[in-house]
Order: sequence, then C-alpha cells, then structure tokens
Amino acid sequence: MKYFEDIQVGETWDIGRHTFTADEIKAFAQRFDPQPFHLDEAAAARSHFGALVASGWHTALAWMRLMIDYRHRQDEGLRSRGEPVAGVGPALGFRELKWPKPVYVNDTIHYASEVTEKRASASRTGFGLMSFRSTGVNQNGELVLSLVSTTFLERRPTRA
Amino acid sequence: MKYFEDIQVGETWDIGRHTFTADEIKAFAQRFDPQPFHLDEAAAARSHFGALVASGWHTALAWMRLMIDYRHRQDEGLRSRGEPVAGVGPALGFRELKWPKPVYVNDTIHYASEVTEKRASASRTGFGLMSFRSTGVNQNGELVLSLVSTTFLERRPTRA
Repeated sequence: MKYFEDIQVGETWDIGRHTFTADEIKAFAQRFDPQPFHLDEAAAARSHFGALVASGWHTALAWMRLMIDYRHRQDEGLRSRGEPVAGVGPALGFRELKWPKPVYVNDTIHYASEVTEKRASASRTGFGLMSFRSTGVNQNGELVLSLVSTTFLERRPTRA
Repeated sequence: MKYFEDIQVGETWDIGRHTFTADEIKAFAQRFDPQPFHLDEAAAARSHFGALVASGWHTALAWMRLMIDYRHRQDEGLRSRGEPVAGVGPALGFRELKWPKPVYVNDTIHYASEVTEKRASASRTGFGLMSFRSTGVNQNGELVLSLVSTTFLERRPTRA
C-alpha cells in the first residue's frame, strides 16, 4: 500500500469480483456454518430464503481474500515503479458488519471500498489508523455486504 | 433453541473450546487471509506480533462453528425431553467485532455468549430478534474476540 500520508479520505478501491457456486457455498458451510439453508437445496427451499444461500461469513471472507490480493497488486505496482511500499495491518476489528440481502447460487458479487477516516495511532509509533467502508453488490445492483474496518498503515519515514 | 419467550436477557451459554494449531492457522490464512504473520513463522517473528498468529476471521469462524454445534446440542436435548424446538436464524449481522489480543499457536480459546437484548421483529411474523455478546478468552484469561450479533428466533405459537 501507499504510505498513510498518501491515502486520501474519500478515495475508492475496486477490490474485485467473486461468483458463489453451489459446491463452494456448501463446502464453506459444512466446515464453518452448518445451517440447513447453507447446506441443502431442499431445506433451503423451505426456509425464509427460498433457495440455497451463502453463509454471510463466506460473503465476508471472499471480500477479505480479494482485499489481500488487491493490496498485493498495489504493492507490485509500487515496486515496479521504484516506489516504497508501506506496511499495513493488522486490523483492529470491524464495525457494522451487515448482510442486507442474501447471496444465492451463482450470484457474482462486486466488492469495493472507500476510505472514510484517517487518524493518528496512540499505541504504535510510525503507523496511522485508516478506516474504510467495504461493500459487496450483486449483479442486480443490490447491496449484500457492508462493513467498516480499521487497520494500521505505515507512515512515511521522517528524514533524519 | 428454546422459543423467543423462554430466552432470558442475561442468560449465558458455554459454547465450547478450540485449540489453534500452526497447520490449521496457516491453512485457513492461505485460503482466506494470506498475510505474512498468519502464514510464515519467520515473517511473523519480524512482525508486530513477534510470532505466528491466527487470522482474526479464523478466531471468529471457530466461534461460529461451535455456536452452531451448541445449538444442535440444545435442540437434541429439547427433542429428547419431548419439547418443541424453535427455529433460529438467519443473523442480521454483527456489531463491534473486535480482536483485542492475538491468538498464538496452540492457544486454546474458550467461547461463551450472553443474551443482551430481546425485541420484536417488524419484518418477520412469528419471530423475535435476540442480541447476544460473544467472547473468546485464551488460557491466560485474556479476551481475544468480542462480537455482538442479532438473530431471528421463533416465537412460541399462539393457541388457536
């Protein structure tokens, strides 16, 4: 990532897309969230959802993986231009993790983020804290995931 | 689960324990959160953490899995006593997902939950909304995970 000083509040990042297959939905749920509406088409048809849906955690973890891949691409771009790469993470946690609509089989979710706040870190010298709101939107333009995260980001070193 | 009417604000649930091995920490991170301090001991030793640590999402997903297993045990107990089983879920989302301390290799995390609020659901007839705070505490008594979730829980059917 860029240094803390080079990040602007309001800047947006196009994180990427993920399509949720039935096999992947069931395999994730089997391990982490074995509720009937994530595991079995017939049980899901009888549920509130009416059809098989991805675990909300699955929707969030697909975002997390794409976010790390996005950062790696950003870092490669910086290195290829001979620019320094700032250290990032760990995250402090998340606020307002919401799943306003379900993710159904073969939905493609488009993830994006927007920087909402920057502030000094009292605990960690050389790092600032950056907050950003991330969203996942399906192929019909419906919001399926929203979360606000706060993470450490390295400051530009001061000259000696 | 018990019906919405039978859940008391303040009641606590002992969800269970999970021990995080190095292999499991790395396998989870490889798939969902490939940051150096979750993947490689040498890189982790040079990081803020000083040693390999579990992804915060891994700490949360271990909770989710144990919570579903806990509900299944509760349901089996109700059925074995000939009592009705209330439908539960889905969750609306989470508030204040926090990782105040890292989870290191071979840490055993004890998960528990406390019901913090009950309220009517405006959107779903026959269900109420229940909020509960869940925590993960390591073998040294340190809090490593805290989250507040809100989920649907079936109301006791009214007599005709």
